[in-house]
Amino acid sequence: MCEASAYIIDGDKQELIMEAVDSVEPEDGGYKLINIFGEQKFVKGTIHSLSLVDHRVYLKKS
Amino acid sequence: MCEASAYIIDGDKQELIMEAVDSVEPEDGGYKLINIFGEQKFVKGTIHSLSLVDHRVYLKKS
Repeated sequence: MCEASAYIIDGDKQELIMEAVDSVEPEDGGYKLINIFGEQKFVKGTIHSLSLVDHRVYLKKS
Repeated sequence: MCEASAYIIDGDKQELIMEAVDSVEPEDGGYKLINIFGEQKFVKGTIHSLSLVDHRVYLKKS
């Protein structure tokens, strides 16, 4: 399975906000993250970058 | 390996622009895609959505 961990970038820090993320969908000025367990989380911000081989998605709050 | 295929969304259509994408990094008002073979492609636009279990990254031109 190729789910990823989602991190919020805040300056030099990276905060893990969700593991096993499957889909990231635009919603209301941000993104809705859904993981393989069906859990959802909303992040007001943008997708900053991806490192897929490392299973990492980076978001940045707006 | 968990690389993905990158698609540009254009209305109802999706155009495959790169396979085996590893990293997607912000650059100059767009994103630089790099695949596992070291090939690079620049897209002026945003990351629209992700479907990681399906190995798909969707971008939208700005």
